[in-house]
Amino acid sequence: MKENYYCVIMAGGIGSRFWPLSKLSAPKQFLDILGTGKTLLQATFDRFRNMFPAERIYVVTSSIYEQIVFEQLPQISRQQILLEPLRRNTAPCIAYASYKLGELDPAAVLVVAPSDHLILNESAFLQEIRKGLGFVEENDALLTLGLLPTRPETGYGYIQFENKQLQPGIENLRKVKTFTEKPNLELAKVLVDSGEFYWNSGIFLWSVKSIKRSMENHLPEIAQLFDLKKVYNSNKEIDEISRVYSNCRNISIDYGVMEKATNVYGLAADFGWSDLGTWSSLYEHSSTDINGNTLQGKNVFVYETTNSVIRFPNEKIVVLQGLNDYIVVESGNILLICKKVDEQKIKNYLNDVKLKLGDNVI
Amino acid sequence: MKENYYCVIMAGGIGSRFWPLSKLSAPKQFLDILGTGKTLLQATFDRFRNMFPAERIYVVTSSIYEQIVFEQLPQISRQQILLEPLRRNTAPCIAYASYKLGELDPAAVLVVAPSDHLILNESAFLQEIRKGLGFVEENDALLTLGLLPTRPETGYGYIQFENKQLQPGIENLRKVKTFTEKPNLELAKVLVDSGEFYWNSGIFLWSVKSIKRSMENHLPEIAQLFDLKKVYNSNKEIDEISRVYSNCRNISIDYGVMEKATNVYGLAADFGWSDLGTWSSLYEHSSTDINGNTLQGKNVFVYETTNSVIRFPNEKIVVLQGLNDYIVVESGNILLICKKVDEQKIKNYLNDVKLKLGDNVI
Repeated sequence: MKENYYCVIMAGGIGSRFWPLSKLSAPKQFLDILGTGKTLLQATFDRFRNMFPAERIYVVTSSIYEQIVFEQLPQISRQQILLEPLRRNTAPCIAYASYKLGELDPAAVLVVAPSDHLILNESAFLQEIRKGLGFVEENDALLTLGLLPTRPETGYGYIQFENKQLQPGIENLRKVKTFTEKPNLELAKVLVDSGEFYWNSGIFLWSVKSIKRSMENHLPEIAQLFDLKKVYNSNKEIDEISRVYSNCRNISIDYGVMEKATNVYGLAADFGWSDLGTWSSLYEHSSTDINGNTLQGKNVFVYETTNSVIRFPNEKIVVLQGLNDYIVVESGNILLICKKVDEQKIKNYLNDVKLKLGDNVI
Repeated sequence: MKENYYCVIMAGGIGSRFWPLSKLSAPKQFLDILGTGKTLLQATFDRFRNMFPAERIYVVTSSIYEQIVFEQLPQISRQQILLEPLRRNTAPCIAYASYKLGELDPAAVLVVAPSDHLILNESAFLQEIRKGLGFVEENDALLTLGLLPTRPETGYGYIQFENKQLQPGIENLRKVKTFTEKPNLELAKVLVDSGEFYWNSGIFLWSVKSIKRSMENHLPEIAQLFDLKKVYNSNKEIDEISRVYSNCRNISIDYGVMEKATNVYGLAADFGWSDLGTWSSLYEHSSTDINGNTLQGKNVFVYETTNSVIRFPNEKIVVLQGLNDYIVVESGNILLICKKVDEQKIKNYLNDVKLKLGDNVI
């Protein structure tokens, strides 16, 4: 692995989708949500650790999670944890990491990845990352990983690839034609059937030079705010970043850069990926009992119950009977029981709870 | 109220039917199961207190509940709490109370009543009790209250009354022909349609003389065991009662005496009664929201849920969605979710829990 290759893990999510299991005080990426013995952040770190030395893996997170990251990743130093004072979506997060790393190493080439995704085939994944890093080092390109869709998923964004192969050496590399937001089921079916659309993984590769240039073109005010030069890695960084974030708008990298830039490329990949964005997606990747239930909790007694996601603390004694296709999750002082088909409504329920009891319950 | 009239409240049940709300450490009679601000025992006591001075109301309970009874009924003295060292069903319980009270007052006339029933029309109830006490004082009679059935309930035993009126003064008094155990639905319909059958309330009235004589005839070995004379109300009582119970068989007063005696009478009554023996019966007597849910718990958020019994501690935050006709009850460290139609299975589930985790969880 070349010395100018870096990994940036984005770990700032607040995880309301898995409420009550994840909450403001413990979002999804900091939980062992799949019961593997590692949190999703640790699994992501370990995955990249196969390829990068620990000192070239950086984590961007909210300042309130500094201690959690430090405890979960003892292999990295405090200097490798970039703290966002406010939540401003992915564009500022990526700008921060890119400009700071650019100061350390102007030739830096990055993979930027979320901290809370599932990747089943690690070696296939790392092989694509390796290919991609090589490509973006040589080319002024913004590269994103697109996943071969296996179903008309309505929970993901899609990327349309051009048919034409670009480089003889990387046959799965294509120019990106369009980005499509989460489609409805009908459209999702059309996209999948077309053979041109891939799931948008939110995993990006680029050189610091390229991403800075793209930001200057498409998000000039953000580029200007984050172009702090020698302030980075100095004792002024925290104060200046605090000022920058309070003046910075909330915008995603997809909307702010990827959908506008003309040098966007995609690497069509297939490594068993899920963004674990819903209980159903979580469920899909967990082992089940003979009735299709995924069960956590040592003292849960289940009767006449099928295809349900059931999670309780080990010390809780639970008898469940007659539930089919439900989510039944307890965490701390909170219990959620909801039909799986209605999990999109959980965020509304959570709003009701917050309205009555205050934000501190999530 | 005559000075030889006494009330005996039976409060020894262990309440596994309402698990996990009631358990060995806090059976149903000691809980405010209807959310009225009084436990069922307190409500029963207060009901009789309209008629009896506190010093003539006795409670029979298990020795492990002595302190609970004492705390819930500060109006009575320790001497009025009869402690059973072992559970031996209602015949020994009634023998103990009858022989002990007979030593205090050989002319004693008793009403013996369970501690965990619901009675809606208190004045109608007390009027029947008054009538009944007068009758059993004048006659060598074992009298039981029969409730006019309002539905073919399969959860109750039935009593068949003779058609012939007995006393011009008490027109609802009849001789009892037969006792019928809990019937199946088909039989229950026949019994109700016949107009001769009444629900067996388990509330009895008799003089000490009559019940002692009946026990000598039908349960002579129990009569002999409990005929302790001057031992009662002395410092030998506890030791002797301990010996008696360990030599005493387990038998109900219905099976041991009422079904065999020839001097059994019934008072046909209608005062809005339930033995609160099932979640459904509890549900029937609780106030419901517009969707038919009975709800306890200050922070329970309910969506698309109907006809369910929902009970949580006030401090628990709960979101429930998509449940129709369920029991959802949390108590302490235990959560139960079960379809209402399957509530008879709860005792089996409880056995599974005990098998795995030991008896101390109930």
